Amino acid sequence: MKIVVIGAGAMGSIYGGRLSANNEVYLVDTNQAVVDKINGEGLKIDENNTTNVYHPTAVTSTDGITDVDLVILFVKAIFSRAALAGNRNLIGPKTRLLTLQNGAGHEDLLKEFVPGEHVVIGTTEDNGAVLEPGHVRRGGVGRTNVGLLTEDTDGFLPALKEAFDSCGFQVKIHENIQQLIWDKLFTNVSLSAVTGVLQVDMGYIAANEYAWAMTVRLIHEAVCTARAMGLSCDEEAITEKVRRTSLDNPNGCTSIRADLRAGRRTEVDTISGAVVRAAAKCGVAVPAHEFVVNMVHAMEGREQ
Amino acid sequence: MKIVVIGAGAMGSIYGGRLSANNEVYLVDTNQAVVDKINGEGLKIDENNTTNVYHPTAVTSTDGITDVDLVILFVKAIFSRAALAGNRNLIGPKTRLLTLQNGAGHEDLLKEFVPGEHVVIGTTEDNGAVLEPGHVRRGGVGRTNVGLLTEDTDGFLPALKEAFDSCGFQVKIHENIQQLIWDKLFTNVSLSAVTGVLQVDMGYIAANEYAWAMTVRLIHEAVCTARAMGLSCDEEAITEKVRRTSLDNPNGCTSIRADLRAGRRTEVDTISGAVVRAAAKCGVAVPAHEFVVNMVHAMEGREQ
Repeated sequence: MKIVVIGAGAMGSIYGGRLSANNEVYLVDTNQAVVDKINGEGLKIDENNTTNVYHPTAVTSTDGITDVDLVILFVKAIFSRAALAGNRNLIGPKTRLLTLQNGAGHEDLLKEFVPGEHVVIGTTEDNGAVLEPGHVRRGGVGRTNVGLLTEDTDGFLPALKEAFDSCGFQVKIHENIQQLIWDKLFTNVSLSAVTGVLQVDMGYIAANEYAWAMTVRLIHEAVCTARAMGLSCDEEAITEKVRRTSLDNPNGCTSIRADLRAGRRTEVDTISGAVVRAAAKCGVAVPAHEFVVNMVHAMEGREQ
Repeated sequence: MKIVVIGAGAMGSIYGGRLSANNEVYLVDTNQAVVDKINGEGLKIDENNTTNVYHPTAVTSTDGITDVDLVILFVKAIFSRAALAGNRNLIGPKTRLLTLQNGAGHEDLLKEFVPGEHVVIGTTEDNGAVLEPGHVRRGGVGRTNVGLLTEDTDGFLPALKEAFDSCGFQVKIHENIQQLIWDKLFTNVSLSAVTGVLQVDMGYIAANEYAWAMTVRLIHEAVCTARAMGLSCDEEAITEKVRRTSLDNPNGCTSIRADLRAGRRTEVDTISGAVVRAAAKCGVAVPAHEFVVNMVHAMEGREQ
């Protein structure tokens, strides 16, 4: 497959590097130093107690690269639109766009660039970290869950699975990928949102009755939205899972909290904001999520 | 009139001191040093460029004081129940309870101690500050607005007005005191609540679009509640008033913000919480206010 990975952070490097073993891969990043390092010394991935070197073609510009089979978006969601708009040349009549980004609802943006049947959405259970430019650590390896918005009429997903699995990934194709995405979203829109606005560790959510009341309310609204979308939800089980996550990770720090603390823009628009947009489509009221989205943005705008 | 003022903070001292000029006044405070100072040197009030000395009887305990005409509650609302429960002896068959405390809905608590027709509610436009124990400054002097929950069948309010006005207050009796209390509440439940949870100056509310969206939402829910209570509200005018307050006091710090910043318990239960309780009685949904009340309590519980 001819694959372009946009974003050479930890996840982009892991996928771009490993996929290059069996595919024609271009890894795009705006950081010239990272690109030079990868082209000069290769892309180093620490995995299984060894450092492997991969050779994707790193570029700061995709000019001249056209008609690729697959574009994988691995930028922070707030940069998705700019990343796609700046690389329209990649997209031909058969090009698929894949997002494994955190949150939900990314398909709305992707459909502005390709037809809905060419959008692939999913989640990844892999994780990793950047060690230095051009050098990442591959941490836990899990499933790469993918699915389509429509029926798979031409066997693209099995082809994707073969291309990925031959490079060390574990792709699982889902008939109902939204169910999986939302199962993950429930924790983010409650635990991550509340620890963010309160600026507390994850343990505080189960420990403080008022923080817990906020969390329960957010879960409830998200469950009502998911049900209106046709997904099935066990609200009690979801709530208990969030409580356990809080209890089991008392010192855990969520991404929204970390971003706000560091004065960075958060991904709240594709986390809590995804619930707000999905709810609007279904006619469900989600006032607490609307309040949280406004609040996180208001916090982003404060002087530090 | 035989009057007991509970709480010798700034407002309690101003009312207790001045009312003692023409009435039998007992000023109650749990702070022995303040009580001793007042009984020893009198209660000093800086007003009109002079320091006047008043002589209410200061006490830490009201044991032996019974059948008073009027008890005025000037403690922080979170201490109202304890203050009344600890001074039940004051309350006889004709005793009226007056609250001029910030927020709304105080009558629910007062009715646990006297019949509803003996509850007097209102607001004060006076303000002041404690300079040292037994010494306060009287700042702006405005109206003392009072009203009953029921009809005034025995002319108590005119008697109260005479007793107060003869001591330098400007009492205005209202047929519909709840309207006045809620007109003031709208600003507190929006501007004060949002600056509190965001920990920002008042100017940020009108300056940041997301903080403003939170504020507008809270005003809207409060207006819906007030209308369900039978009050009349011009939502556009209320919203504009809040916006002007933000613009005209860019560096202003609200009480909820100040309390949270100092690690103190706030009065959110009688501010935003008053909207939640009133809405529950009327069957109005106020999810943003519920979220704010939980959030402020969750913030109170954090380690500083």
